[in-house]
Amino acid sequence: MREIAVIGIGAGDPEQVTMQAVSALQRVDVFFVLDKGEVKQELVDLRSEILRRYAEDYRVVVGQDPERDRTTTAYVEAVDDWRRRRADVIAALIASELGEDQVGGFLVWGDPSLYDSTLAILDDILARGELAFEVEVIPGISSVSTLAARHRVGLNQVGRPIQITTGRRLAAGWPEGVDDVVVMLDAQTAFTEHLDQDADIYWGAYLGTPDEILISGPLREVAAEIEKVRAEARDRKGWIMDTYLLRRKRWEA
Amino acid sequence: MREIAVIGIGAGDPEQVTMQAVSALQRVDVFFVLDKGEVKQELVDLRSEILRRYAEDYRVVVGQDPERDRTTTAYVEAVDDWRRRRADVIAALIASELGEDQVGGFLVWGDPSLYDSTLAILDDILARGELAFEVEVIPGISSVSTLAARHRVGLNQVGRPIQITTGRRLAAGWPEGVDDVVVMLDAQTAFTEHLDQDADIYWGAYLGTPDEILISGPLREVAAEIEKVRAEARDRKGWIMDTYLLRRKRWEA
Repeated sequence: MREIAVIGIGAGDPEQVTMQAVSALQRVDVFFVLDKGEVKQELVDLRSEILRRYAEDYRVVVGQDPERDRTTTAYVEAVDDWRRRRADVIAALIASELGEDQVGGFLVWGDPSLYDSTLAILDDILARGELAFEVEVIPGISSVSTLAARHRVGLNQVGRPIQITTGRRLAAGWPEGVDDVVVMLDAQTAFTEHLDQDADIYWGAYLGTPDEILISGPLREVAAEIEKVRAEARDRKGWIMDTYLLRRKRWEA
Repeated sequence: MREIAVIGIGAGDPEQVTMQAVSALQRVDVFFVLDKGEVKQELVDLRSEILRRYAEDYRVVVGQDPERDRTTTAYVEAVDDWRRRRADVIAALIASELGEDQVGGFLVWGDPSLYDSTLAILDDILARGELAFEVEVIPGISSVSTLAARHRVGLNQVGRPIQITTGRRLAAGWPEGVDDVVVMLDAQTAFTEHLDQDADIYWGAYLGTPDEILISGPLREVAAEIEKVRAEARDRKGWIMDTYLLRRKRWEA
């Protein structure tokens, strides 16, 4: 039977790849990549560098990533629809490019379990019943773990919970019942909505790469600096990937 | 100046070590280990296997882990006190065993950012001002990422938050505002308190090791089986390390 390996390749440093990921990279015959048509040439180059270092005897097959409807306010439906159309593209690629006894591979930045659609797309394809394959998932170092490591902090306070959420949700309000909030996918610097909180921020962009930027401190004192540095970096490079931890220093009685 | 590397070594499979961790393991002169005086000989053996495979020219120095007061209900204070006494032990070991130009190392199961006290202990020691050293943190594959990978699921639903919490907290109630809850450090199978929820559970024990056990399904249907399998495994091996994801299938309007 066909096999598909979904391989977490870390946050951006090729040295974050695990031994297990290296073994998987070596077993893959065909890597599937969706061309996002964006300007993140550096990410494409970084992915190529990982393949060059660790993979052997492989082909790379590139599909056209469908457009996502970013005009609608129906976020979940838009993402569901996008995922179905990505599944169409990927199912066609697997059927035409992967032999019955071959191993296909998807490279996922960070960890495949965190805000990544690859597993859901493969589930979609399997549910249609037209293609059969085994799925193996290789966990990777997430940008969240990298953020904490580079700032040398834990994500949790002693015995306390952590929430991982999106910029969209943080903009709607500080999450209930938690003092430690990790924010991903934030295009709008939603932390600026919470300057009334007595919180620290640990922010990082381009984590694990030579362009990594780290800023931390009391949220009220460093929020403006992060906004400025973030906007300048995005203008300079044409894209940005960032994440942050907000830590409210409040203990329950 | 002295340097201390805090190295995430993955959830239990030596192949989960990253290339970056291998480089760090090779640079360490002295590994510091606290002897917990427990029966988890397998974990000690697994750690030794990781050192044997990847480290070079090193010594291992073992300190006596102080007892934690498990009788008090003042959980945070008890952990703080325990951490201070661990800091005493570790500060003395660093002062006596690590040369001024040497690299010390701590191996951390999973990822150092998640429910681990090593970084807080090193901060404690630095804050006392008697010892100076640089700290470098190498992120690792957490048991949470491993759980998701082995079950081939994402941790989040589309655009939704995730909470990572403890068994103690889950026993006190389902967290506010989240449908996806990852539970660590649960000695009391707190999921059994939530059989009223229309939720799925993805449970795993001894993740990444040859003894790995995975059970998933509707919480109400598999909770009793997990309790039984968990108790049997703990009896057989003398210890258990497990974690799980609870996923409530409810979408916001």
